[in-house]
Amino acid sequence: MNKLGAPAGASRLRKKIHEVIFEADTFAGKLFDVLLIITILLSVLVIMLESIASIRVNHLKALRYAEWFFTILFTIEYLFRLISVQSPIYYARSFFGLVDLFSIIPTYLSLFFPGTHYLLVIRTLRILRVFRVLKLVKYLSEAQTLGRAIRASTHKIFVFLYTVVIMVIIVGSLMYLVEGEKSGFTSIPRSIYWAIVTLTTVGYGDIAPATVLGQALASVVMILGYGIIAVPTGIVTTELVRDERNKQITTQSCPNCSAEGHDYDALFCKYCGTRL
Amino acid sequence: MNKLGAPAGASRLRKKIHEVIFEADTFAGKLFDVLLIITILLSVLVIMLESIASIRVNHLKALRYAEWFFTILFTIEYLFRLISVQSPIYYARSFFGLVDLFSIIPTYLSLFFPGTHYLLVIRTLRILRVFRVLKLVKYLSEAQTLGRAIRASTHKIFVFLYTVVIMVIIVGSLMYLVEGEKSGFTSIPRSIYWAIVTLTTVGYGDIAPATVLGQALASVVMILGYGIIAVPTGIVTTELVRDERNKQITTQSCPNCSAEGHDYDALFCKYCGTRL
Amino acid sequence: MNKLGAPAGASRLRKKIHEVIFEADTFAGKLFDVLLIITILLSVLVIMLESIASIRVNHLKALRYAEWFFTILFTIEYLFRLISVQSPIYYARSFFGLVDLFSIIPTYLSLFFPGTHYLLVIRTLRILRVFRVLKLVKYLSEAQTLGRAIRASTHKIFVFLYTVVIMVIIVGSLMYLVEGEKSGFTSIPRSIYWAIVTLTTVGYGDIAPATVLGQALASVVMILGYGIIAVPTGIVTTELVRDERNKQITTQSCPNCSAEGHDYDALFCKYCGTRL
Amino acid sequence: MNKLGAPAGASRLRKKIHEVIFEADTFAGKLFDVLLIITILLSVLVIMLESIASIRVNHLKALRYAEWFFTILFTIEYLFRLISVQSPIYYARSFFGLVDLFSIIPTYLSLFFPGTHYLLVIRTLRILRVFRVLKLVKYLSEAQTLGRAIRASTHKIFVFLYTVVIMVIIVGSLMYLVEGEKSGFTSIPRSIYWAIVTLTTVGYGDIAPATVLGQALASVVMILGYGIIAVPTGIVTTELVRDERNKQITTQSCPNCSAEGHDYDALFCKYCGTRL
Repeated sequence: MNKLGAPAGASRLRKKIHEVIFEADTFAGKLFDVLLIITILLSVLVIMLESIASIRVNHLKALRYAEWFFTILFTIEYLFRLISVQSPIYYARSFFGLVDLFSIIPTYLSLFFPGTHYLLVIRTLRILRVFRVLKLVKYLSEAQTLGRAIRASTHKIFVFLYTVVIMVIIVGSLMYLVEGEKSGFTSIPRSIYWAIVTLTTVGYGDIAPATVLGQALASVVMILGYGIIAVPTGIVTTELVRDERNKQITTQSCPNCSAEGHDYDALFCKYCGTRL
Repeated sequence: MNKLGAPAGASRLRKKIHEVIFEADTFAGKLFDVLLIITILLSVLVIMLESIASIRVNHLKALRYAEWFFTILFTIEYLFRLISVQSPIYYARSFFGLVDLFSIIPTYLSLFFPGTHYLLVIRTLRILRVFRVLKLVKYLSEAQTLGRAIRASTHKIFVFLYTVVIMVIIVGSLMYLVEGEKSGFTSIPRSIYWAIVTLTTVGYGDIAPATVLGQALASVVMILGYGIIAVPTGIVTTELVRDERNKQITTQSCPNCSAEGHDYDALFCKYCGTRL
Repeated sequence: MNKLGAPAGASRLRKKIHEVIFEADTFAGKLFDVLLIITILLSVLVIMLESIASIRVNHLKALRYAEWFFTILFTIEYLFRLISVQSPIYYARSFFGLVDLFSIIPTYLSLFFPGTHYLLVIRTLRILRVFRVLKLVKYLSEAQTLGRAIRASTHKIFVFLYTVVIMVIIVGSLMYLVEGEKSGFTSIPRSIYWAIVTLTTVGYGDIAPATVLGQALASVVMILGYGIIAVPTGIVTTELVRDERNKQITTQSCPNCSAEGHDYDALFCKYCGTRL
Repeated sequence: MNKLGAPAGASRLRKKIHEVIFEADTFAGKLFDVLLIITILLSVLVIMLESIASIRVNHLKALRYAEWFFTILFTIEYLFRLISVQSPIYYARSFFGLVDLFSIIPTYLSLFFPGTHYLLVIRTLRILRVFRVLKLVKYLSEAQTLGRAIRASTHKIFVFLYTVVIMVIIVGSLMYLVEGEKSGFTSIPRSIYWAIVTLTTVGYGDIAPATVLGQALASVVMILGYGIIAVPTGIVTTELVRDERNKQITTQSCPNCSAEGHDYDALFCKYCGTRL
């Protein structure tokens, strides 16, 4: 008897489906994953092509058929995933479960709200599964290192972002006063948008100061923006260096002389020669 | 008898007001802070909305009423703060005291000088108080770490900024000679403005070199600007790494001479030679 | 008898050619290298000049003659290189062998496909040989340090780039929905192009959001782009610092077990406990 | 008898002039330096003002008089400097000697070549003397630290710049082929200029790709430019961190146990407790 009370045959089938869909160790599992990734890429391509006016005019019908084809395919796949896992609710709530769901909903939604099917590009996120196929555990560990460094810097980055937000609000308001309605600074929110464009050194040029005072103020903002980028960079670098260093040194202390700071490959204390 | 010679009842009242306004431990204090932050955000929103032409035309009266309402509210709050502290002058001169004052003055000023009330956006700074409400002591410590790193780099950053200023002045003058009055380089100050826009990699494109020689010179400036951003980044990172390393020093003090600042691998006090 | 079975005189000649062309120790070798670099620079200059319309109109014939002159010269040089090395196939497949080949092919191709001769600028890569002339072994070692740091960061950088790609696809699609066909966001690929221009803080301004919602979304992208540049910088810096630190390990080997990689402060071998 | 064979009175006068002009310890020396800096700033201001068309039209005569006044003043100062030093040739060849000379020459040159007097902005460099006045020895040491870090990175930075130059040449040529004469890519040098504008993330927008292939290629260049900025930053940071570390650790080894890596303030070996 299995947990869900299904007959042994059905249970074995579910196990088989689970193996093909969720794992990448068997030939069938690997083949499924590779086909899936190709299908995902094709379906994203279809959405992009549809957004191009000249293509849409001539091939709208074919593109729509393709889109519905992919959506139905992914819907079936989603149902199979739900069936084959032990706990469907746990899967449905997981990151990949949600991504899988949001990858099919927009097409159905577009029946009622035209245009929303462009949200299907969220399907791109599904390609994250590629990492499993290629058995790129290494990449996952690297991603975790980066994630840990960014998480460890959250507080510092929050403080930094808050400073930036305050700065662009005040600078934006000042520029609105200085430049007036001419030269694009038509409201404070728009001036704040300009301040962000300038401070981040993006500089579209759709709004640019025209008065001498405005240009002087803009110069200060630019040099500030150019300089303070050093802060987040410094924060992340410090975290990565710390992470790096922690990996190299054990917290093990010598039983004889209590010295610490031994490398992971050390067998003997480097200060007194006692076996660790 | 308290210091100001007020009767005990007034003193107790003042203490109560101080608790509500300045602290966030009691329910009343927390409620006050949360309401205050919402009020600040709303008052900033009103100023921004007023700056948008289409909204100003239709709702000017309502917005002005709102602005005066908030200003009077903040004025009352300011007076209460002055009354409830032990030393009103000390508070008035403190960072938050000045921010509180500058958050109400512009409205009164705008009676005489129209337009100045946009300076009210300085109210945004008041939200810094939010840190206290959320008991985010952690954020304060992180902000201090960043502040310390930036302060420690002040001399290096000053040298860097001076180099940048000299560079943009000389490059700006050269470009004025090279490009002439065509293509926007109409004066040396304007050329210097262009040099800053280029060196900081903002690049609006409102002024851009048109001659071959000008573009060659601009290319050198761009590559320079692209490269020397490494300098402030390096400076701040070094300071943060140093700060980080200092944290790794034990807080252990010598049993003999009480000296502190020993490395984690130290076995003997480095000042008096006693075994730790 | 030499390997190819050629008479001793031919072998000596081949050896002589090899010395002149491939080495830079003798006067003839050094002279050859200096002349070669000047020729390469001149030939690149000719290609650039030809691309300028006003020069092309007046001097097309002279430029074409020069181009064929350089191509034939480099063809002869290539043949000499093939002849003078022990294993022509090994050379032809090496990096410099391929660069040398691609530096002459486009001219011959341009007989059949006009325009392709501009690909000759690949000749610039040949100047890499300059390092040998100047005996700049130091530069090679520095290039290797940089290369090692970048190679060691490959996995982390791949994870970073993947995140960036996903981000620009999703942001691009959202902007296409938000901004509509107005203001340049005419298709999803074009919106993705805009997202890249913005996230990398390049900011041409040929496409810029015009709606309030679009500008708000753009602001988030800019601040993100401004912040996440910290990640690759942190990665490369960490690798370079690690490389640096590895250099600090002594080259001292244990007298007992010959193990290497001891820290400078190690007194005993960390693998067998023998006093160093 | 002094070296130049001048009578004792003249020698004493020369010594006095030297003290006033070159040193900043006496009151007269300090006063001279402060006046000098004000004069330099005023003279730079005059040049900038003259470049502004509206001011030039109305006040040309006054500005020219001012310029000649400052030039003659600086000429006299230059002569006094030459007279008062022991070795006039050594001074004339030094960095400050050359700056002082180039700060007066352009005015005289402008008699023959109009327009050249704008080169007078080189006078700004003279303000470097301000460091001596303020006795900012600290700044000099910081500048030296930065200079040392940049010098130590020269080889790595050269390798990096060479890679960037090769990259923009090849990308520029490809874009010329891809985009053709439309959309501003009118010649290879101009396309290379565009490549530099893009790679350094400046992004004027005066030249921007219009074809799909061109935009795809541009996207690659942007992401590359966004990423490789990590390299110079990493290099400089590593050098600064190394410099930092070297400052903190002596090369002194313990006379008893030969341990190294002691802090500068260490009096006893931290491993065995022996007095250093």
